[in-house]
Formats: sequence, C-alpha cells, structure tokens
Amino acid sequence: MAALFFQLFEKESSTYTYILGDPLTREAAIIDPVLQTSERDLQWLNENGLKLKYILDTHVHADHITGAAALRKSTGAQTAISAAAQVDCADINLAHRQELFLGKIKILCLSTPGHTDSCMSFYVPGKVFTGDTLLIRGTGRTDFQQGSSEKLFESIHSHLFPLPDETRVYPGHDYKGFTSSTIALEKQFNPRVGMGKNKNDFIKLMSDLKLAHPRQINTALPANMACGQVQELS
Amino acid sequence: MAALFFQLFEKESSTYTYILGDPLTREAAIIDPVLQTSERDLQWLNENGLKLKYILDTHVHADHITGAAALRKSTGAQTAISAAAQVDCADINLAHRQELFLGKIKILCLSTPGHTDSCMSFYVPGKVFTGDTLLIRGTGRTDFQQGSSEKLFESIHSHLFPLPDETRVYPGHDYKGFTSSTIALEKQFNPRVGMGKNKNDFIKLMSDLKLAHPRQINTALPANMACGQVQELS
Repeated sequence: MAALFFQLFEKESSTYTYILGDPLTREAAIIDPVLQTSERDLQWLNENGLKLKYILDTHVHADHITGAAALRKSTGAQTAISAAAQVDCADINLAHRQELFLGKIKILCLSTPGHTDSCMSFYVPGKVFTGDTLLIRGTGRTDFQQGSSEKLFESIHSHLFPLPDETRVYPGHDYKGFTSSTIALEKQFNPRVGMGKNKNDFIKLMSDLKLAHPRQINTALPANMACGQVQELS
Repeated sequence: MAALFFQLFEKESSTYTYILGDPLTREAAIIDPVLQTSERDLQWLNENGLKLKYILDTHVHADHITGAAALRKSTGAQTAISAAAQVDCADINLAHRQELFLGKIKILCLSTPGHTDSCMSFYVPGKVFTGDTLLIRGTGRTDFQQGSSEKLFESIHSHLFPLPDETRVYPGHDYKGFTSSTIALEKQFNPRVGMGKNKNDFIKLMSDLKLAHPRQINTALPANMACGQVQELS
C-alpha cells in the first residue's frame, strides 16, 4: 500500500516540508519541518490521524531553523539526521543506506554530500526527497558548510540518477513555482548536472556563482546544530 | 493508466496551475495558467513531451491575468471556460457535466457557482481541481462577480463533497503552504463548510468578512473576459 503523502510549503525560506504516513499503522515521518510552521504541521498530522514517529532533516540548514525540536517536544517523535552532521542532540544518527520503517513502508536513507558534507536524501518507492542536493533544474550551492562541487556531482550521479526514471523528485526548496520533477526529467534537462554536463563543467560553474550568504545563516546554523532548540535570550 | 500530473505555483497571486497529460497520446490540459508564468509552463510542457490540447480556466479570475491567450497563441490549444461566464473569445463554452478527453483520460466539468456565477471544477479519477470554490480549510469569497454564499455552499455540498473520500483536492490558491487536501479532510475539517456547518452559518460568516477587493481586479477582469489578451496601450 502506498504511503499517505503531503507536501507543504514555507514561504519565507521557500522550503518544502513533506509528510509521509502509513495508512495502516498511522505512523508518520516529517521531512525538513520549519520552526515557523511547526504548529501548522502538527495540526495537519493530527487532522490526518497520524502519529509522528520520525523527524528527518536532510541536512543542517543554513536558511531556516528546523522545526525538529518543537515537534519532538509536542509529539515525542525521534529526530534523525546524518551521523556525519555531528549533531549531538539527534536521537538517531543516520548512516548511508540505513532503513527506517513506518509500518511496512521503508524509507531508505542515502548519503548525498556536496551541498554540505552531511546531506542525506530519503527514498521511498516512487519518490525521493533530495533536500538541497538535487533541485528542480538546479542543485544546492557548495560554497559553505564543507560544501564540495565534486562531491555534489558524484552524489547525484551515484545515488540519485540511478533511481528509477519515473521516481518523483521532491526537493528541499523551489523558487520558480515547481513542486516536483522526475529523475528522468532531471537527467535530461538539469542545466548543471544533466545530460552533456561533466564534473569539471559543474565545478567551474559552481565556483563562478559568487552567491551572497543566506540571510539567516548566523542564527540558523547554531540553532540547527541544536536540532532547532532556540536559546532563550537572557 | 493514470494521467501525468504536475502542480505549479505562481507566487505573486499565490495561484496554483495544473498540468494533466495522457502518457500514451501525450495530449495535455493546463488548468488556470497565469500570464506571468506562461513561458515557464510552455517549457515544462515541451520538456515533458506534451502537446497542449486544452487550456481550462476554472473561472474569470479577479486576482491575476490568465495565461490562456498566450498559451493558445504558442500552441494552438483550445481555450475553455464555463458557458455561463459569457466569455466571447473562448473556443469551448463548457456545460455542466461536459466531458473532455486527453486520449482515454476523461476530464469531467462540474458547474460549481458561488465564488463567481460561472465557476467550474474539473474532476479526473482521484483528483478534483476546485478553483476558488473549495480551498484547503477555506472557500473562495462571494462578494463580487455575482458571487453567492448560498450557491457556493450548495455547489460544494452537491458536487464536491459527494466525490470519493480519497479524492485529492487541488485548489486554485493557497496562502498557508498547503498543496493539496482530500474530500474526506475538507468534509471533516473545513471550518466554513465542513461537518456541523449549515448554509445559514456560512452566509452570515461570508457577509461578515468585509474583505478589500483584490489589487489587480480592475485590470484582471477585463483582460480575462478577453481570455487574457492584454490590450496594447496606444
């Protein structure tokens, strides 16, 4: 039986949050929740009769504060992030190809570093949640948090593009109004890593981008290393 | 075989545009395209190998200009809108329960007036595109364009809520970051028309709203009565 599935959006940081649920046991996972929308997400889980089991972050975000701690406090669910992120507060430190289960629904965790050194993607049959590794017709940036254009290119080509062509790609962000793509479409049309693009082209392209840092990086990174537990100001 | 399906978003007016396609014949329909994103939509159709057959508007929009004329010009597709809208330029003037086909995929047109006097919803098995009739945990407003709270309540209860419970609801807009709901969820939790709400409550609630008119109404309405053909200024 296919997982229950909802896609949600947080406008301020253009972040997609995803909810997966087992229709039988009602166990659920949330991927990349945002602190500001955690009440909304909680209500949505409750109204769907879902019991949150896992709170998954694809990586330590630099552009928004994760809703992980807030949702953990409300639900008792376990927070999970790549072991490579070295986030002390996470309940589960995920390894490459680790499997998590919602009833019989298997979530396969894929280590896909490059945007940061500890990015993960999450795969369920028919869908892959790619965080800031693979975006629709784009990729995450690679210029901070131990980013590496070489690793990003390899992660996409080794772990994402080999997935079945019809797999829906659900990214961590979108800025152009796309909500999903497919592996086949990104293999063919992604202008950075798709057909005809090689690793050296990609490394050069990324080093030429010269992007400004995200506005919230100085507050987001320390907060997210604490699973989104925002320090009270004294 | 299920239709190919993509949901797209136009930020300025928070409008959802939808693309449906037949995987065999590659015939496609677009629902509620926005003028500003018509080039994006066209590229998406092309990259998916889809041939646009129908351009459907759920109603004469007051908050954005339809991309209908621009897409018709580029593709030769037929524009379609409710006959009740009295839009002279439409290629097809849709009647209640009229059927349109993309290969063997049937789109059932449902007359659901109330937000305007000529709103339609479009149903394919598993999905309903509700325009501004039924929103996620809300409804369209009813205070202009021959809007009628009584008709809106009746439309939702007569034509949308009787659809199968698991039918995904894809609205014309969302302002809270929801991308879809289901008929079951809206029947239970919609605070305006869901469980426990009667027509008189709804009429009173809507008359008490006192909303400001949409910013673009004075340009959008005449443009949309011309299928989105924007007059050149002399």
